[in-house]
Amino acid sequence: MDLVEIEQKLKAAVKDSEFLKKEGEVASYIPELENVDKDNFGMALTTVKGQTLAFGDEKIKFSIQSISKVINLIMALEDFGPEKVFSKVGTEATAYKFNSLIPIDEKVVNPFINAGAITTASLIKGGDVEERFNRVLAKVRELSGSEDVIFLEEVYNSEMKTTDRNRSIAYYLKSKEIIEGDSEEILDLYVRNCSIGLNVRQLSEIGGVLANGGRSLKDGRQLIDKNVVKTTLSLMSTCGMYEESGRYSIEVGFPSKSGVGGAIIGIVPGKCGVCTYSPRLDKFGNSVRGKKVLAEISETLNLNMFIGGNNGNF
Amino acid sequence: MDLVEIEQKLKAAVKDSEFLKKEGEVASYIPELENVDKDNFGMALTTVKGQTLAFGDEKIKFSIQSISKVINLIMALEDFGPEKVFSKVGTEATAYKFNSLIPIDEKVVNPFINAGAITTASLIKGGDVEERFNRVLAKVRELSGSEDVIFLEEVYNSEMKTTDRNRSIAYYLKSKEIIEGDSEEILDLYVRNCSIGLNVRQLSEIGGVLANGGRSLKDGRQLIDKNVVKTTLSLMSTCGMYEESGRYSIEVGFPSKSGVGGAIIGIVPGKCGVCTYSPRLDKFGNSVRGKKVLAEISETLNLNMFIGGNNGNF
Amino acid sequence: MDLVEIEQKLKAAVKDSEFLKKEGEVASYIPELENVDKDNFGMALTTVKGQTLAFGDEKIKFSIQSISKVINLIMALEDFGPEKVFSKVGTEATAYKFNSLIPIDEKVVNPFINAGAITTASLIKGGDVEERFNRVLAKVRELSGSEDVIFLEEVYNSEMKTTDRNRSIAYYLKSKEIIEGDSEEILDLYVRNCSIGLNVRQLSEIGGVLANGGRSLKDGRQLIDKNVVKTTLSLMSTCGMYEESGRYSIEVGFPSKSGVGGAIIGIVPGKCGVCTYSPRLDKFGNSVRGKKVLAEISETLNLNMFIGGNNGNF
Amino acid sequence: MDLVEIEQKLKAAVKDSEFLKKEGEVASYIPELENVDKDNFGMALTTVKGQTLAFGDEKIKFSIQSISKVINLIMALEDFGPEKVFSKVGTEATAYKFNSLIPIDEKVVNPFINAGAITTASLIKGGDVEERFNRVLAKVRELSGSEDVIFLEEVYNSEMKTTDRNRSIAYYLKSKEIIEGDSEEILDLYVRNCSIGLNVRQLSEIGGVLANGGRSLKDGRQLIDKNVVKTTLSLMSTCGMYEESGRYSIEVGFPSKSGVGGAIIGIVPGKCGVCTYSPRLDKFGNSVRGKKVLAEISETLNLNMFIGGNNGNF
Repeated sequence: MDLVEIEQKLKAAVKDSEFLKKEGEVASYIPELENVDKDNFGMALTTVKGQTLAFGDEKIKFSIQSISKVINLIMALEDFGPEKVFSKVGTEATAYKFNSLIPIDEKVVNPFINAGAITTASLIKGGDVEERFNRVLAKVRELSGSEDVIFLEEVYNSEMKTTDRNRSIAYYLKSKEIIEGDSEEILDLYVRNCSIGLNVRQLSEIGGVLANGGRSLKDGRQLIDKNVVKTTLSLMSTCGMYEESGRYSIEVGFPSKSGVGGAIIGIVPGKCGVCTYSPRLDKFGNSVRGKKVLAEISETLNLNMFIGGNNGNF
Repeated sequence: MDLVEIEQKLKAAVKDSEFLKKEGEVASYIPELENVDKDNFGMALTTVKGQTLAFGDEKIKFSIQSISKVINLIMALEDFGPEKVFSKVGTEATAYKFNSLIPIDEKVVNPFINAGAITTASLIKGGDVEERFNRVLAKVRELSGSEDVIFLEEVYNSEMKTTDRNRSIAYYLKSKEIIEGDSEEILDLYVRNCSIGLNVRQLSEIGGVLANGGRSLKDGRQLIDKNVVKTTLSLMSTCGMYEESGRYSIEVGFPSKSGVGGAIIGIVPGKCGVCTYSPRLDKFGNSVRGKKVLAEISETLNLNMFIGGNNGNF
Repeated sequence: MDLVEIEQKLKAAVKDSEFLKKEGEVASYIPELENVDKDNFGMALTTVKGQTLAFGDEKIKFSIQSISKVINLIMALEDFGPEKVFSKVGTEATAYKFNSLIPIDEKVVNPFINAGAITTASLIKGGDVEERFNRVLAKVRELSGSEDVIFLEEVYNSEMKTTDRNRSIAYYLKSKEIIEGDSEEILDLYVRNCSIGLNVRQLSEIGGVLANGGRSLKDGRQLIDKNVVKTTLSLMSTCGMYEESGRYSIEVGFPSKSGVGGAIIGIVPGKCGVCTYSPRLDKFGNSVRGKKVLAEISETLNLNMFIGGNNGNF
Repeated sequence: MDLVEIEQKLKAAVKDSEFLKKEGEVASYIPELENVDKDNFGMALTTVKGQTLAFGDEKIKFSIQSISKVINLIMALEDFGPEKVFSKVGTEATAYKFNSLIPIDEKVVNPFINAGAITTASLIKGGDVEERFNRVLAKVRELSGSEDVIFLEEVYNSEMKTTDRNRSIAYYLKSKEIIEGDSEEILDLYVRNCSIGLNVRQLSEIGGVLANGGRSLKDGRQLIDKNVVKTTLSLMSTCGMYEESGRYSIEVGFPSKSGVGGAIIGIVPGKCGVCTYSPRLDKFGNSVRGKKVLAEISETLNLNMFIGGNNGNF
């Protein structure tokens, strides 16, 4: 399939989803997140050959929110290896909400609920919080191939003021000896990571690198270890969309991760990364319109991993 | 990759897993299941082009057990459609054991725990139990391309005598109005389906059809609706290996389903079906040696869906 | 306090609760239970000196339903002793509903949810079901001091037809090896015990015996072992009113047990037994008007165990 | 029964329990709690007539720990009334551990797990923490009839350093809007209340007041509202001994509350308060030897509420 055809299908999906423009609610538990134009919509797709197509509000920067959980996991795996990481977080989906403390026992059930991502944040190496966060920011910039990834300080400040639940989780993890070190610092890093700001084009580029087995789209350099990519995509596939991960997998059929900022990143291994941004969420915290667009292009561009009719490259 | 190369990799995997020959325990809760040679090992792989390679105890027939849950789901979806089916069973993984009654609320959490498969069995059309079971048998014969699929009556009788838990589940589902009709009959059909006997070659052929988007490997005829295939494989990917579905997905990376008879069926969409048989199980009820072999060939034959480096056909 | 005064207080409570005459719903899951006059109200009080006061529909016989759980427990304790009994059922309250299977692990959480009472029913000695049931009937007749305790066959037949949940529980208990013997027979005995029919006067006499430390109100003979009484009343106090046992204890303050037939039996140790009958139930399955009357007389007759101002006999 | 006889029975119980002197472990999660003589044993009994008998290490002051939950509840009920209090904490026992966050939903399951007592602490009126704590201290001094109730600053400091779990709970309650106000301040008050130091004689006097319906043992003045007493004793009876409240009620049979400092307070309504101190705990956090002594005197002094044979005053 050539780029022109892909472009047509994407445009069709965007158009077909317009009726959902007003569906769902913007996340309100972080006050600053409400200060966006709720009707915005942007999307981008990056092939493993390095071509990017972008549409709509493609330049608007949004906070990455829970998509940072993917970055936390990648960095924890690179910094400490799977044995250590999976002694602290498990690998199984859960029926509990993303901010629940129940699926925390000897370890946290998986790295994509808040408790799991606070735990992986605790496994990112570095000196003080500032230094560790700078490593994260550098990683995101490298993966997105863009220096213009920013720290959204207002979002960070807003979230820090209202983050009672995450603070509760951090101290709980500390009391269970799942995290070591200072709970307040780990929470601080976790919230900073959530407050990273970028646009759909940049996020789609990160998806492209993951689709490409961790290799740079520019020079083929291995930016993320191949086993880390494999592990990360598998977990996105089984646990990436909260309590509806199974349902989403049926409808869309490739590894994805959503954030309450309104973005969804999807990865079609060997083919492309894709990103949508639309801030209105369903009750699980997933973007309503984003899901619809991804389900449609999964069909029209034949991206569902479970139907192998067309497994050649685009 | 040509067949000779594939054969070499499979043989290597079988050999590399020999050290696990005595690891794990044969399922004991169905007495008849213990009457097998515990050290048996067989495997087969069927490409979407219809070529089958088989090794070891390839002619031994074993009971399909929980792999029948895949058949139940396919037939329920074909007989009643996804809307009806998913009003009775959900789509999400669970941390509870396969025989638990806890993840039953308005609906059963997913179709691959016992309660879910008893529910899908209740959605297989037909007159009396005999007639409905004959439909199931005919389906399995058609998918495996072989008439020599049998009913293991001793296994059935043995299980019926000891199936207190499944009987409890059936009456529970009835009391919750999740199943309609006669609980004893539905239980009877469920246990019969578990008692279907076939060998690795036949099961691998079924896998091949699923890998081929539901089309016959002989004549390309659509044996299973494409959307049913997509749904089934997605659910196998997220819930197929009980409480270690996530972990297994990381290690093997393609949709699979295990049975306590010792078999595992795996499907690599667009490429092949694969089946192992080795009766010793881990604590989750998954075949110890089967898992090891599948993990190795996932690596050596590049079958992991999440690494898209080689997405061409074999 | 003399009998005249007691009579006045009881009459006042009955009158004060008239406004609740139409509140609540009659249990519908056993169809036969709906064939009663929903507005009936009767009550009786029996002092440890053997005097009984009765009011309202005192002659109407109703099915004992869950109050039989008290009898099951007493007989199991007498037949097998506390060590055996409490190896099968625990002693702690639960937040789960009376027909839940969740609070069944190594043992059933307590003897007053259905699963617990099916378990204690399995610990009542005797030959076949008939013989065991006759022992239960004889016990109830002895405790109530009346031969006119009957078996309500229509209620029994009605319940047997609709008892899917209890059948599920029985097979579950069997699969967990908590009950031994034939699940269907044990279920049969359990349902028969629920179908015992008596009136408020007879039930209040049973309460009087329990209040009297297990000694006959007529001749002082020990009808129930004192330690069995102590254990039974303590469990009624902590678990007797389902998920609102704690709340009820605050409001009424003496050991009680309700049945979905509409009766509540209460025991004030050293003072009296009391019984109300009013078939409209709250969402927990406890009689609405019964609870109100018992709360009022607890206050006016100073029956609350936790306020020791008047601990003398009546 | 006269005092001489009571004294003999108490002495016998102390002696009979000596074999448990080395059984159980001192609480270690608050380091300072380990700095006690583990073999200490003291006890006291105070009749509603105001007579106190004390034995053993009766002068040693220990931290009240979870027995402060009784004080928190009493003060919250007095300050805000039952409607407000029970909109925040429930009235039912739980199978979860005292430091669990699971039994927190719309409200905390009961006031005697940590989450419940942090909630009732938040309902104690006053200005800053200092002022509110001074009110608590004044209350304990008034109830114990002694000014020599102290604040154990080392225990407080030790607990504040290690109280990650309780801090987690406090922020969780805040995130669920169960507590209002500053989480750190409420936690501070909760820990201070746990660090109140007194001896068995003083605690037994408090028990005596509760046994006396809230009236002073000296001048009969109502120190606690009678309804507050009734509610508090009922809750102690159903939830006072953590996950073994039901079992304890069978064995001892009167409302009690334990603390991990090693004390147990028991109240026999209309008769007496009683207190034991012995720092070695069972796995639930209840004093091993204390429980044994209380079970024995319940028998020998006929204190079990559920056996009404002797309901006269001592």
